[in-house]
Formats: sequence, structure tokens, C-alpha cells
Amino acid sequence: MIVEIVTTGTELLLGQIINTNAPYMARRLNELGFDVLFQSTVGDNRVRMTQVLSAALARADIVVTTGGLGPTQGDITKHVTAELLGRQMYRHEPSLERIRSFFAARKLTMTDNNIRQAMIPEGAIVLDNERGTAPGVIVEAGKNTVIHLPGPPHEMEHMLENSVIPYLRDRFGLQGTILSKVLRTYGLGESSLEERIKEYVKNQGNPTIALLARNAEIHVRLTAKASSGAEARALIDGLEGRLRERIGEFIFGEDEDTLEAVVGRHLLAKKLTVALAESCTGGLVTSRITDVAGSSAYLAGTVVCYSNEIKTAAVGVPEAVLAAHGAVSAETATAMADGIRSRFGTDLGVGITGIAGPGGAVPGKPVGMVYIAVSGPAGTSVFEYNFTGQRSFIKHRTALAALNHLRQYIDLL
Amino acid sequence: MIVEIVTTGTELLLGQIINTNAPYMARRLNELGFDVLFQSTVGDNRVRMTQVLSAALARADIVVTTGGLGPTQGDITKHVTAELLGRQMYRHEPSLERIRSFFAARKLTMTDNNIRQAMIPEGAIVLDNERGTAPGVIVEAGKNTVIHLPGPPHEMEHMLENSVIPYLRDRFGLQGTILSKVLRTYGLGESSLEERIKEYVKNQGNPTIALLARNAEIHVRLTAKASSGAEARALIDGLEGRLRERIGEFIFGEDEDTLEAVVGRHLLAKKLTVALAESCTGGLVTSRITDVAGSSAYLAGTVVCYSNEIKTAAVGVPEAVLAAHGAVSAETATAMADGIRSRFGTDLGVGITGIAGPGGAVPGKPVGMVYIAVSGPAGTSVFEYNFTGQRSFIKHRTALAALNHLRQYIDLL
Repeated sequence: MIVEIVTTGTELLLGQIINTNAPYMARRLNELGFDVLFQSTVGDNRVRMTQVLSAALARADIVVTTGGLGPTQGDITKHVTAELLGRQMYRHEPSLERIRSFFAARKLTMTDNNIRQAMIPEGAIVLDNERGTAPGVIVEAGKNTVIHLPGPPHEMEHMLENSVIPYLRDRFGLQGTILSKVLRTYGLGESSLEERIKEYVKNQGNPTIALLARNAEIHVRLTAKASSGAEARALIDGLEGRLRERIGEFIFGEDEDTLEAVVGRHLLAKKLTVALAESCTGGLVTSRITDVAGSSAYLAGTVVCYSNEIKTAAVGVPEAVLAAHGAVSAETATAMADGIRSRFGTDLGVGITGIAGPGGAVPGKPVGMVYIAVSGPAGTSVFEYNFTGQRSFIKHRTALAALNHLRQYIDLL
Repeated sequence: MIVEIVTTGTELLLGQIINTNAPYMARRLNELGFDVLFQSTVGDNRVRMTQVLSAALARADIVVTTGGLGPTQGDITKHVTAELLGRQMYRHEPSLERIRSFFAARKLTMTDNNIRQAMIPEGAIVLDNERGTAPGVIVEAGKNTVIHLPGPPHEMEHMLENSVIPYLRDRFGLQGTILSKVLRTYGLGESSLEERIKEYVKNQGNPTIALLARNAEIHVRLTAKASSGAEARALIDGLEGRLRERIGEFIFGEDEDTLEAVVGRHLLAKKLTVALAESCTGGLVTSRITDVAGSSAYLAGTVVCYSNEIKTAAVGVPEAVLAAHGAVSAETATAMADGIRSRFGTDLGVGITGIAGPGGAVPGKPVGMVYIAVSGPAGTSVFEYNFTGQRSFIKHRTALAALNHLRQYIDLL
């Protein structure tokens, strides 16, 4: 069953509000096994809405709209559908009664405009609105099913969950389960990752595979359809196993896992503590680590050491190291990781130094040059990066790289 | 000129990501005087994308797309347009060269896939991508103009602002000026703010006034249309002056100003330095301060002191203060601000301690209780907050409050 979502409203066309209705509906309908293949947005204009709805009726089995069920003359969604499908509109007395009660309960005056909200296309199923005045409607017409929902998200969501989804389950005899799992990877670009698993991507069936680049992570989403949860799980497990053979070393977590959450879990599991000395990331890595509830169990603390004086005084980087190699060097990163570990008495220490830009470059040390060191019982490892881009991007990429090196170091212990 | 925005990508259809590109483009294009009358979303499927793009070409003069310019086989947007308009694709050598350099500069390996990104429809205008690998293209074909932009928002926005809008201005001889100015406020809720300026909001004409809540800031956007820049500027200035009489104390900056940028400017102007001791914010405030280029001129450094031991050892909070009042107290915040200022030898010190949750609450000290102290030549001020919400929200709100207190302290010096 092909679904098109049509969202209506001038605020959407003008870009004044973000469209959250379309993704909400898309997610829920996809989970039920419907194929949401088109989304459209159009304003409250009779000609253009007719164009959009008739195109939708031609290419989709189910058309779900939001918006345009209000009391004003500009609210025309139901009327356009009625005209397209050759239905008369009539006043639905139970709905009018509900609207009257809605106003009475709030001691508000109902205007004549609101009567418009009780106008329904002939033969339509009426969906009561428990959170507002506009009823929803479902019009069945040949191969098409048109579902009109109100625009305010809390009204739409309630009606979708409590009226529309039960209707669709019942009408289309929905059996079975859709199961998704996301494998989160870091360290390979999208095309390199795809290259490694391309035979599975190309020949995908059930489960499907989707690659999604997200802030320098690549997420691999597996989605299986099956008649039972156990069967769907088995399908996912099988494919996941084959993918892990190819890209396992880059998979750091699943579903909602973040790098900092995985680092935290591994630190907790191995009963290890960590301290950081951050220069170019300016506290960003520590802020991410402390986004995780309970991080006080393994994070002792951090020194953000922007100046050389603080690197020496608060972290213990020898002045000689700074003088010989400069603040941005493998040696300084190493001394920062070793120093903070020793000062704060932790199992692990992380040192990060680099040039976030746009200023600060010197000959041989361009903007984006970064050193990350991890110190611990297995010695100190240091890594060089050369990022490009804006300051915030370099900070972000450096933070991810640091979290990933910390994760890998812990895994080897 | 009628515009249709076509956003592409399976993640959008599945509802996995929110579509922020469409409203951004819609807002900017409407400001220029174009009528964005349709928005569509379709996946990376040749048949369906052909349907959607040919419908768009029929009903709109200008079709702007995002997405589908990547290196994979699923990236087909340009190819579908070329086929619809009867254009051959050719390899655009300057773009290939740019892509090669992009990979070389990052010491990454370019795969053959990436060559696909340099394939361009015959006769198209190529838009260099300064933030990624995929060039944009503009294809002029009879009454239609098709503009393909990359999907990642930071790439799309940069290309729209720097290449597409100048092109459209030039091509369509856009006269007149639209001028916008944003007044950024912090410290009042949206409805309280609107209440203070409601007569201007209600009776708005030219300039228009729009209130926008953004991460606990409220932005007031003034937009004037006029025949010249000077005239538009005068309209904005007049209204801005009247608004400042009502809400001036809450306005911390304009347009792209952030609290941390304003704090930085004021520190620089007064030649002051600052150091921070962060507990519950975990480095977030320092990370925001160091998002500003050149912040090393006024930020000495920070200690993130999650444990009491580090509060004492690295910040100098007396053990007696911790014992008598607890880590989350006005006294500890004060000792943190004074201590870090003294240890790091700066003009100003900031101390932040609180309970970000979800754990950590004790009787009398609920989750969300936060103390922020600012220490400096005018003495030490301390403020108590009781935020509610999730951990990340409490961190974020605390960071904003701390930056705002720091800003206010500097203003009084």
C-alpha cells in the first residue's frame, strides 16, 4: 500500500514553522508496513490543493492530510476532497454537538464559523477529536482512502494513534511486525563504508539496508518485515552478523547509543576512571561525557588549558616540552594525557591539543592539525589528525575522534 | 515566479529526520519575493523522482531540490533532471579536481564513487561546494530553472546564500530590498515578552515582527520592505528603538550574535580575562565560550570538577565549605568562582554547581537546583536556579544563565 502525506498550511510554505507532522506520520505508517513514498505541502488555495490532492490520489492508495480543518474560509481540505471525489458535504450533527460542548465546557462563545468544522463529506467516517474542535474524516473511494487529520500536532498525534492506526490495522488486516536496528559506525566515510558492504546494499531485500550520514557518524539501518517478532529478529541478526564481518571494527554502538554513552558503559564495566586535559576542544569532550547520567562514577574532572601557563601549572606539562615542540605537538598531547592522569589520580588520561582556527596557524602547523593522546596502564598512544572546515566543525570532529580513541583504548585493556 | 521545493531522501520519507532544509529555503526565497507554493519530498527512486520532478516543472518556474548529489548509486537527482530535460551528463573536470583536493587535504582516499559527484548535465551552471564534495548545479531550460543543492544543511545554506541568491537576484533583476534584523533576548518567556510589545505585534505592518523561541532564547525578527536599503534600514531602526524601550534589558545581541560571542566582545573591549570552575555543566559553558574564534585572548582555562576532591585540589574550595554546605550550595559556588579566579590569576571567575539529574537529588536539593557565582573586582555574586526537565536541558539552561550572568557582571564593570 502506497501512502502520500499531504501537509497543508501557509506557515509551512513560508517556512515559518518546521513540519513535524510529516515525519511523525511517516515513521508510524512505515512501522506498520505501509510505504510512504511521497510527501507534499501546499497552501490553503483551492486550485493548488486540487492539483496536489488529485496527483496524490493518482499515485498513492492512501492519502493522509493534516491541516485545513479549522473554522475559517481558508480551511478547505475536506471540501477539496469532496469535490474531487464527487461527494456532497453535509452537517454532521454529532460533531456539531461535540463542538458546542467543547465551547460550553470552556465558557467560550462558539461562532457560526465553527459550524463549518462539522461539515463532512457524504459517506465519510468521522473521527472524534478529543483534543480540539475539528473532527477528522476518512473517505473510502474505490482504491483510494483519504484521511484528513487536524494540523496541531497534539491533536493529530492523538487521532492517529487512537483512531487512524486501529482503523488501518482493521481495514487492511495488518499482521506481522516491522523491526529496525541501527548499527552506528565511526571512522569510515559513507562511500568507503558502502564500498565494503556493497553486495549487501545492492542485493538487499528483507531486511532492507539504509546508510545515513549523521554528524560524521554513519548509521546503518536494517529493517525487517516478518510475521512474528522472533522471525524479524532472526532476519536482522543474520544480516547484522554478515555486516559485522566487514565493518565490525567501525561499529561502536546500536540504535540510540552515542560514543560517550558507550565509553561510559565500558569504563563502568571495567571499573576505570578518566580525566582529561582539553585545549582546542575547549571542554566539548567533557561536556559530551557528562551528558551521560551517572558519569560522575568514572569522570574525575578535566582541565581546559587554553594557555601554556595553565598547561604547565594545572596539568603538569613540562615547560621544556612546550619550548621544544610547541603547544600543538604529539609530545605536548602526550604530556597532557600523562599529566592529567597523574594529577587527578585516574586510571586513564586524555590530552587534546590542536588548532581549531581560523587563526593560530604557524608554518608546518595548519588550522585543523590536532593531536589526541590517551594515557593508561597500557602506555600512552598519540594520534595526529588534519581536519579542515570551520572552527565548530573541527571541534566536533576532534571530540568524536577523542571519544573513539578512548573507547578503543578501553576495549584493549 | 512560482517556486517548488523538492527535498529528496529516504530518511525524510521514513520520518527519521526532520526536514529543516525546506523551511530554510522557503523563508529565504519568500523574503526575496518569490512565491513558494509547493513543497515535495520523494525518495531516491528513479520512477518516483521523475514523477515528482516533472510535476514540479509543469507547475513551477523555479524548482529547487536538496539531496541526492552524493557519491552512491542511490544519488540520482541530477541524472533524473538531465533525463527529463534531454541533457547528457558529462564529467566536469574542475569539480573532479576540487573533489580530489578535498580528499587529499584530509589525507583520505577518494573512491571511484566520488567521480559520480563531478557528473554534470550539459549546459548547467556549476556551483562550487565550499563545505563538502558535491557541487550544486543550475539548469536553465525554457521557462524553468532547476537548482540542485546538496542535502547537508550547512552545505546547502552556504551555497544558497553565496551562490543561488546572488544568481537569482541577477537573473530576475530583483529590485527593492528586504531587510531583516533579529533582536536576540534572554530571560523572558515568549508570552511575557509578547505581552510587553503586544501593541506593536498586533498593529504590525512594514516592518513585520515575528517572535521565535529558540533554545530558551526568544528572537524578535523585524523585516522591512523598501525601495532602497537606506529606507529599509530607517524603518527597522525606528521600530527597533520603540521595542528597546520595552524590552531593551533582555536584548543581549543582534542577528547571529550568541551569548558567548557577546561575552567575548565585552571581555575583549574591557581587556578582562576569565576562568571557570564547572561542575554540573561538565565543560559546556567553556565549550561555548571557546566556540568563538580568538577566545584564547580572554579565556585562561577551566577546571571541570565533578568530584569533591578535585573541587578542593584543583580549584581550592575549602573542605570545610563542602562539609558545612555541601557541593551544591551558594557557598561552594562562591568558593569555586573565587578559587578558580585566584588559581588561574584571572580578572573574573565563574563557579557553577548543581544537580543535572536524573540521580543525585537529596532532601532539600532537588534535581535542577543550580548555583552560579561570578567573582571579580566588584565582588562575588551568586544566583540560585531551580530548573526542571531532562539532564541535557538542565545543562543547557544552566549554561545560558551562567553566560548571561557573566555578561551582566562585565557590563557593570
